[in-house]
Amino acid sequence: MQKIAFVGFGVVGQGLAEILLEKKQILKKKYGYEYKVVAVSDFTKGSALDQKGLNLSKLLKLAKKGKISEYPGAKTGLDAVRTIRQSGADVIVEVSYTDIKTAEPAYTHFKAALGAGKHLVTTNKGPTALYFRELAALAKRKKAAFRYEGTVVAGTPVVNLTGTCLAGNDITEVRGILNGTTNFILTSMEKGKSYEAALKEAQRLGFAEADPTADVEGFDAMAKVIILAKSLMGADIGPKDVKRTGITRITLKDVEEARAAGMRWKLIGKVKKTGRGVAASVRPEKVAVTDPLASVGGAKNALTFVTDLLGEVTIVGPGAGRKETGFALLADLLAIDRTAK
Amino acid sequence: MQKIAFVGFGVVGQGLAEILLEKKQILKKKYGYEYKVVAVSDFTKGSALDQKGLNLSKLLKLAKKGKISEYPGAKTGLDAVRTIRQSGADVIVEVSYTDIKTAEPAYTHFKAALGAGKHLVTTNKGPTALYFRELAALAKRKKAAFRYEGTVVAGTPVVNLTGTCLAGNDITEVRGILNGTTNFILTSMEKGKSYEAALKEAQRLGFAEADPTADVEGFDAMAKVIILAKSLMGADIGPKDVKRTGITRITLKDVEEARAAGMRWKLIGKVKKTGRGVAASVRPEKVAVTDPLASVGGAKNALTFVTDLLGEVTIVGPGAGRKETGFALLADLLAIDRTAK
Repeated sequence: MQKIAFVGFGVVGQGLAEILLEKKQILKKKYGYEYKVVAVSDFTKGSALDQKGLNLSKLLKLAKKGKISEYPGAKTGLDAVRTIRQSGADVIVEVSYTDIKTAEPAYTHFKAALGAGKHLVTTNKGPTALYFRELAALAKRKKAAFRYEGTVVAGTPVVNLTGTCLAGNDITEVRGILNGTTNFILTSMEKGKSYEAALKEAQRLGFAEADPTADVEGFDAMAKVIILAKSLMGADIGPKDVKRTGITRITLKDVEEARAAGMRWKLIGKVKKTGRGVAASVRPEKVAVTDPLASVGGAKNALTFVTDLLGEVTIVGPGAGRKETGFALLADLLAIDRTAK
Repeated sequence: MQKIAFVGFGVVGQGLAEILLEKKQILKKKYGYEYKVVAVSDFTKGSALDQKGLNLSKLLKLAKKGKISEYPGAKTGLDAVRTIRQSGADVIVEVSYTDIKTAEPAYTHFKAALGAGKHLVTTNKGPTALYFRELAALAKRKKAAFRYEGTVVAGTPVVNLTGTCLAGNDITEVRGILNGTTNFILTSMEKGKSYEAALKEAQRLGFAEADPTADVEGFDAMAKVIILAKSLMGADIGPKDVKRTGITRITLKDVEEARAAGMRWKLIGKVKKTGRGVAASVRPEKVAVTDPLASVGGAKNALTFVTDLLGEVTIVGPGAGRKETGFALLADLLAIDRTAK
């Protein structure tokens, strides 16, 4: 029986809670997986703690009203760190908001969880990208799991794929489409829209933020490249080590010229082993239409792994979404449960 | 320390042996995996058994001369079943030749291995497709692992991907390019070659057999569809339940017409859950160029999984090859070792 505490309970946290609720019986039957949610703490929605277990459907209803603290009979008023320490949880699901510059407050939550020897499961890119080495070492010292499948392309298997299914391969290069917003914009431009019109459409559909800088200038993809470099290649790189160019200077003319040459523009995040470490970049690249990355349109994401035994292996899947990212957390929870058996 | 016996020692078995030899140190360091090959039995190359362990590089040299029985100091002259019973191995790597109609002699080997409570790792499609249910039940009863990653698209993760990384999803449909030979032929036809010329080229390059029936008429893809239906959907179907059409009637004109409409012909193997079971087929289908399967050219393979939580996830990778298939066996050996810890 896995005891779970949520730190943060927004779209992704609620996505996981919905999956856990809907799939309770099948998860038990098929994988022998049983869980109990003992606490939730959200910065704006309040907190609730009950070591006997919270009712997920009640919790989801209260979360939608932003009033988790009204959960009947639960201990309330606990901040994230107190929730981690007092919940009695085995696993902390950290899904508070991400800050790619300071990594806070999630970095504090991560250290509190792992420092207390609790498993940590997260989709939070900030601390994972910036403090990976320290966090991995802390987890190892405390014999706790540190799992972050959802930090890169939502629940599409990447970290778990390379860690289990591709285990035994030397991965010498990873390159891919790591940001759905920019891929949506570039795909729209191929249909004849200007960059500005495509961006507006992406904003209208909720794919792009009002301030699109993090996506269109490649910062979001950069964080994922850093996580891939650290996680798959053991390279301790930071933002300064990634050559980064956004898509803002790609014109309709560029897109049409590429098409005429049998190519498509994609924002490619890449990390490659070199003699002395790794070379990492995020930049628009022309990809041949025969490349598996070329057919990845709209908000989809994809990654190609260059391996010594299998050659190139590509995975294509969702890069965002409530259930799609919620599933990344479930995959990590199941992996922890498997190891515990 | 995993004790391995090989039944069959052709291209794929030697591929695994080469990987085990080259990666001995790194497998120990990175995954704590240690092995010992205690026996090999090949129908034409002879056999060798030494419970103290055989030297892999010596074994590979003798295999190349077809004279495994000359291994110094080893017990020789044992057939496959005796090798399985007398070897003291924990795991049988069954890579003898495949017969998709009778499944023999591999079927006998499978039963001998699992019946003796030994783990079975295989790339052999015949018995896996035809006797899956019985073999899985026998394995369960004997508490032995039955792993067959390499029966579908070589070492490209499919069975292990769905069993671990995608665990928690309901997979409602699987469709893909499951045969490299036909994909090579169709890709060549897109470059203007006739079917006959493309087939000849495939034969010259070693992608197609002298009698290409199993590939071009869809029998090979059919066996993989049956394995996917049984393994991923628990459906107990046989050859008669798969609607099968080969690629022999596709003309250059068909290929050109498809291209003009933004489509490409692919031989698609498919299995889909229906209200009352599954619907399975292998047939040429026109795929839109925006589909991830469309960009899969040459001898590459690919599979799209339709899931309830992630939507569509596609994996693209090699479908054949010495190391590529050898790796499928390694992935299964590592998975068994992980479970044992």
